[in-house]
Amino acid sequence: MAKTLIQNGTFVTVTEEAPVVRGCMIIEDDKIVYLGEQERDPAEQFDEIVDGSRKLYMPGLVNTHCHAAMSLLRGYGDDLALQVWLEQKMWPNEAKFTGEDVRWGTLLSILEMIKGGTTSFVDMYDHMDEVAKAVEESGMRGCLTRGAIGHCPPDVQEHKRREAVQFAKDWHGKAGGRITTMMSPHAPYTCPPEFIVKFVEAAHDLNLPMHTHMSETLYEVLENEKQYGLRPVDHLAKLGLFSRPSIVAHAVHLTDAEIATLKEHNVHVSHNPGSNLKLASGVARVPDMLKAGILVSLGTDSSASNNNLDMFEEMRLAALIHKGVSGDPVAVPAKEALKLGTVNGAKSIWLDNVGTLSVGSKADFIALDTDQAHFLPKSDYVSHIVYSASAKDVTDVYVDGKQLVRGGECLTIDEEKIKFEAQRRFELLTNG
Amino acid sequence: MAKTLIQNGTFVTVTEEAPVVRGCMIIEDDKIVYLGEQERDPAEQFDEIVDGSRKLYMPGLVNTHCHAAMSLLRGYGDDLALQVWLEQKMWPNEAKFTGEDVRWGTLLSILEMIKGGTTSFVDMYDHMDEVAKAVEESGMRGCLTRGAIGHCPPDVQEHKRREAVQFAKDWHGKAGGRITTMMSPHAPYTCPPEFIVKFVEAAHDLNLPMHTHMSETLYEVLENEKQYGLRPVDHLAKLGLFSRPSIVAHAVHLTDAEIATLKEHNVHVSHNPGSNLKLASGVARVPDMLKAGILVSLGTDSSASNNNLDMFEEMRLAALIHKGVSGDPVAVPAKEALKLGTVNGAKSIWLDNVGTLSVGSKADFIALDTDQAHFLPKSDYVSHIVYSASAKDVTDVYVDGKQLVRGGECLTIDEEKIKFEAQRRFELLTNG
Repeated sequence: MAKTLIQNGTFVTVTEEAPVVRGCMIIEDDKIVYLGEQERDPAEQFDEIVDGSRKLYMPGLVNTHCHAAMSLLRGYGDDLALQVWLEQKMWPNEAKFTGEDVRWGTLLSILEMIKGGTTSFVDMYDHMDEVAKAVEESGMRGCLTRGAIGHCPPDVQEHKRREAVQFAKDWHGKAGGRITTMMSPHAPYTCPPEFIVKFVEAAHDLNLPMHTHMSETLYEVLENEKQYGLRPVDHLAKLGLFSRPSIVAHAVHLTDAEIATLKEHNVHVSHNPGSNLKLASGVARVPDMLKAGILVSLGTDSSASNNNLDMFEEMRLAALIHKGVSGDPVAVPAKEALKLGTVNGAKSIWLDNVGTLSVGSKADFIALDTDQAHFLPKSDYVSHIVYSASAKDVTDVYVDGKQLVRGGECLTIDEEKIKFEAQRRFELLTNG
Repeated sequence: MAKTLIQNGTFVTVTEEAPVVRGCMIIEDDKIVYLGEQERDPAEQFDEIVDGSRKLYMPGLVNTHCHAAMSLLRGYGDDLALQVWLEQKMWPNEAKFTGEDVRWGTLLSILEMIKGGTTSFVDMYDHMDEVAKAVEESGMRGCLTRGAIGHCPPDVQEHKRREAVQFAKDWHGKAGGRITTMMSPHAPYTCPPEFIVKFVEAAHDLNLPMHTHMSETLYEVLENEKQYGLRPVDHLAKLGLFSRPSIVAHAVHLTDAEIATLKEHNVHVSHNPGSNLKLASGVARVPDMLKAGILVSLGTDSSASNNNLDMFEEMRLAALIHKGVSGDPVAVPAKEALKLGTVNGAKSIWLDNVGTLSVGSKADFIALDTDQAHFLPKSDYVSHIVYSASAKDVTDVYVDGKQLVRGGECLTIDEEKIKFEAQRRFELLTNG
C-alpha cells in the first residue's frame, strides 16, 4: 500500500461541507483517506511526505467534450468562414489522418491536458484504439467513443457501427478502470435516423451511455426541423437516444420546452464556451439549464476550434460570458463554474467518487503554485481559481493516487518525443 | 552604446509588410536597428548575443485602462450584485487606501504585468505620485492620470483639480520619457459638467490628452439622458472633452450616431472585455467601431473586476466574444486582436514608435517560450498568440532596450518583498 502525506496545504475541496481546508491530506493507493486540520502522529509511516505550503490543491479538471487528435490542426486555417474552414481545411486533412496521426495528435493533447491539470476527458474520434492506448500510457482517465458520421453508403455505415461496438467492448473498464466507453452517432445532422437507432440499440446491448453533438448551430436546428419536422431534442428523444444515460455536447440553441425535455430525461450537457464563441455558434443558455436542474459540465472541444485545452479558461469563460450576455452579475458565480469543471464533469461521465477532495474519493487531484502575484492577496481561492488561474499554474497532477506530473514535468509520457512527432505529422499532412 | 543581437528567432512584428520574420534582431540602446534574415558578420561586436531559437518575439503588450492599486482587493467580494460589491466591498476599502497601500497594490500589478508581457499601461487612480514612483522603478512605461470624482464639496473639488494638475505637470516626460500624463475627470456620471470643463481647460493649458470612463453600463447612459438630456458621447462633446486628444474606457453602450461622433472627433476607445463581462455591463460594439475606423485598444480594468492582468486573455476575449455574439466567425480575427493589444494600444496613448517590431522602433518587446504543446504545430504564430498563449508563456521582457524580465525572473523590482507587502496591506485593510 503506497501512502502519501501532503502537509501544510490549502485544499479547495469542491464540497458544500468544507469548501476550503487548511491542513493535510493522506492518500493510500488510489484513494483519499484523510483530509483535515489534525496534526499527524510523527510516528506514522509514509512512503512520501510532500510539503504543500505555497500550493493550492484541488480536484483534477474534467473535460467532457474533446477530439484530441485534432490538435494536429491547431491554428491551421483560423478566422475563415465556418464552411470554408470545414470543407477546405479540416475535413480534407482529417480524411488523411492515419492511426499514427491520431496517436501523436492525441498524445499532444494529453500532454497539454495533464500538464494543465485535466485528469479526465471525453474523446470522440476515429482510430480509437490509438486514443485508448495513449490514455493507457498517460495515466489519465478517458471516457472514449468512436464518433460515427452516418451519411455514407450502407456497407460503410455497417462497418462504422461494428467498429464502434468493437471498440466499446474491447476497452470498457480497461487500464485499471481508467477507460470507459460510450456509443456515439456523431450528430442528428450527420446521421440518418435509422443509423442513430442502431447505435442506441447497441448501447442497450452493451449497457453503455450515449454521446452526441446536438444543436450547436442555429442552422442545424432549422434544418432538422425542415427535414424531420422536429427540433433536435425531440428528434433524438423520439429515436430513443435519451432512453440511455446520455451526454450531449454544445446544446447552444434550446427552447424552454427543450430544456424541460432534457431535464425530464436526465440528459447531461457538455457546455463548450470557447469553441461556441470561436465558431460563432452562439451562447448556450447555461443559467437556464442550471436553474432547470440539468447536469452541466465543460468541454474544450478540439484545439482546432478553441485553440487550447486549458480547462481553467473554460471555467472562466463560463463564469464571464453568461454574466455579460444576461446582464446579471451573479450568473454562474465562481463556485458554480468550479463545479462545472470538476465534480459536474465527473458525474456527467458517470465517474463515481471523482471530482471532489473528500475522504473515500479517488485521488485525482492537482496542485497549483499560488506563490505568484495573480494569486494575491489570499482573499478567496475559489475566485482566484476561476477568475485568475491558468493551466500554466499547475505543478503536480495525480490520477488514481499515481503522480503523472511533478513540478511541471510529465512523468508518464515522453514530452520531447511527442512534440517532435506531432510537428512531423503536421508537416507530412499539410505538405503532402 | 549597448548592442544586443538576438539570433535564430521567430519575430511576429505586427506590421503589414512582414508579419513574421525568421532570423535576427539587433537592438542598440533603446531602438531596434535591424530585423531580418541576413546572416551576421562574425566580426561584428555585441555586448550580448541571445539564442532566440524556441522563442517567439513580439511587441510588448499595451494595457490602455487599469487601476493598478486595486489588485490589493482581488477576489474580495466577487459574485455580488454590482451595487453591493461597490458600496460594501470596494468603496469603503478604497477610501481607506493610503499612499503605502497604493504603492504595494500598484507594484503587485506591475509585477504581474511585466512578467506577463505588458510593457506599457494606463493608470487612473489616486495617490498617483506613488504610482509614478513604482513605474519609474519597474522600468515599464506608464501613461498616468489622477482620476477625480467630482461629486463632492467645492473645496474638495478644487483640491482634486489642483492635485491632478500638479501630478500631470510633475511627471509628464519623466523616467527617461517612459512616463506621460493625462487629465481625467472620472466619468460623466460621477462628475458635474462644470468640473469636467475645468479638467478640459487644464488639459488645454498643459497640452495634455484626456481620459475618462464612458458608457460602461446602460443604467449610466439612461441616467445621463435623464439628467442632461443627452447621451454621454454628446454630453462630453458638448463639454469640450473631445477638443483634446482623448481616450475613453469601456464605451459599451453606443448608438450608430455616437460611433460616428467618436470617429469624427478621433476619440480612442479602450475596450475592456473581461471587466465588461464580469460586471455584466454588456458587450461593446467593437466590430462596428473598427468598421467606422475608430482606434480601439484593450484594457484589463482593475484586478478587482477581471481578476487578472493577463493581456493575452483580453486579446483572446476580444477575438472570441464578438464572433459568438455577432454570429460572424470572421469578426475580430486573430491578426486584428493582436493589433488591439499592441500597436493600437501604443497609438491610443500617443506613444510614437512603440507597438511593432521594426527598424527604428523603440525596443519594447517580449519573448514567449514556444517549446510547449499548446504552441504546436507550428502552423500560425499569430493565431497561437491570440487563441492559445497566456501571460505565463512570457520568458523575457524589454522596455526601451533594457531587460526587465529574464527567464521569467523580474530584474528591476523585488518580487518577494512585493508579494509579502501586498498581502500584509490587504490584511491590515480588511481586518482593520
